[in-house]
Amino acid sequence: MDVQSYFPIWDKLEPTHQRLILDSLTERNVKKGTVIHSGDMDCTGLLLVRSGQLRAYILSDEGREITVYRLFNRDLCLFSASCMLRSVQFDITIEAEKDTLLWVIPAEAYRQVMERSAPAANYTSEIMAARFSEVMWLIEQIMWKSLDKRVAAFLLEESAIEGAALLKLTHEAIANHLGTHREVVTRMLRYFQNEGMVRLARGAVEILDEKKLAALRDA
Amino acid sequence: MDVQSYFPIWDKLEPTHQRLILDSLTERNVKKGTVIHSGDMDCTGLLLVRSGQLRAYILSDEGREITVYRLFNRDLCLFSASCMLRSVQFDITIEAEKDTLLWVIPAEAYRQVMERSAPAANYTSEIMAARFSEVMWLIEQIMWKSLDKRVAAFLLEESAIEGAALLKLTHEAIANHLGTHREVVTRMLRYFQNEGMVRLARGAVEILDEKKLAALRDA
Repeated sequence: MDVQSYFPIWDKLEPTHQRLILDSLTERNVKKGTVIHSGDMDCTGLLLVRSGQLRAYILSDEGREITVYRLFNRDLCLFSASCMLRSVQFDITIEAEKDTLLWVIPAEAYRQVMERSAPAANYTSEIMAARFSEVMWLIEQIMWKSLDKRVAAFLLEESAIEGAALLKLTHEAIANHLGTHREVVTRMLRYFQNEGMVRLARGAVEILDEKKLAALRDA
Repeated sequence: MDVQSYFPIWDKLEPTHQRLILDSLTERNVKKGTVIHSGDMDCTGLLLVRSGQLRAYILSDEGREITVYRLFNRDLCLFSASCMLRSVQFDITIEAEKDTLLWVIPAEAYRQVMERSAPAANYTSEIMAARFSEVMWLIEQIMWKSLDKRVAAFLLEESAIEGAALLKLTHEAIANHLGTHREVVTRMLRYFQNEGMVRLARGAVEILDEKKLAALRDA
């Protein structure tokens, strides 16, 4: 897997622009739990996920979190280079959810390419539009879905990502993903347990009845 | 006011691209209440607001609404031309909130320009980033702000837009802006009235104590 494969428009870039990207690229290895980018940091640059998993979230003044989107292998993270775009007026935090291997393209190098290359600029628009769609989906979830469905959807999504029924997740972590309080999640999970959908253990949730959980999510 | 003034990058466009935009442009006059664009419509095109006011909102399956952003004089509406961007996967409805005079650039013409011109593509990214910022602000509001603060903020914003203390707004309309139910808004407004912050009349809310309302919003 090489850098080229992250950019479907690679062949449309001029050789000088390809060079600029390849020459400025650095490799980074981050441990699970590392905050790679936050609002008060300098412009980190464009992140290309080679392996691992990142989580982008926003924080309230009181320290509450909500997950906005996640990035997996072969995803490209734009908002860690938001200094490129004057109109980005929000702070997003990006954290490694697993040990993650990254390529970093410095924001200044990417900005130079984007400024001169229509294919690069349009590709950047497409990435932003894809994130925009995820954020609109999140608004719909928050506004119109009740929390029981959101917790069910979250557990099923986690299980699909991990490929496992046993999820090592504290109630606190689930609350942070969904932007709610731990107590609320604990109450909901106990209800799920009483209904036979999950089994709770210290720092873990095991899915026992995926079908029933999916039925709740889709109800 | 001419089309050029909507595009700070106009002088960086090639003459053929300038021609393409100018020749494909049409004028449209829409009455207050008209739905200009919705998810199931064809790609309406890029909207340039010459005068009036537009509202962009999303709808739940049950018909509940929430205002995502608004567009005023000299604003440019991108998501009515979302067919240009493959990655836009959400449906937004755009409605005239006042009688509105528009220019429409057909999506296909704009796409042709954007595809070939780096300045046009980057300008489009900036517009999208600005909307993205508004949407992130909205998520923060929904997640972390209680409804009393949101209603107070909404009334003050309306008052600033209209330049008036007397707002012709039904409780239903306020609920639709904020994505909540009419009954909840009615209860909140009655509380505001008891506190001397507003006076309620049929289809209208009058702001009596702007300072107190602002203090509640910022508390």
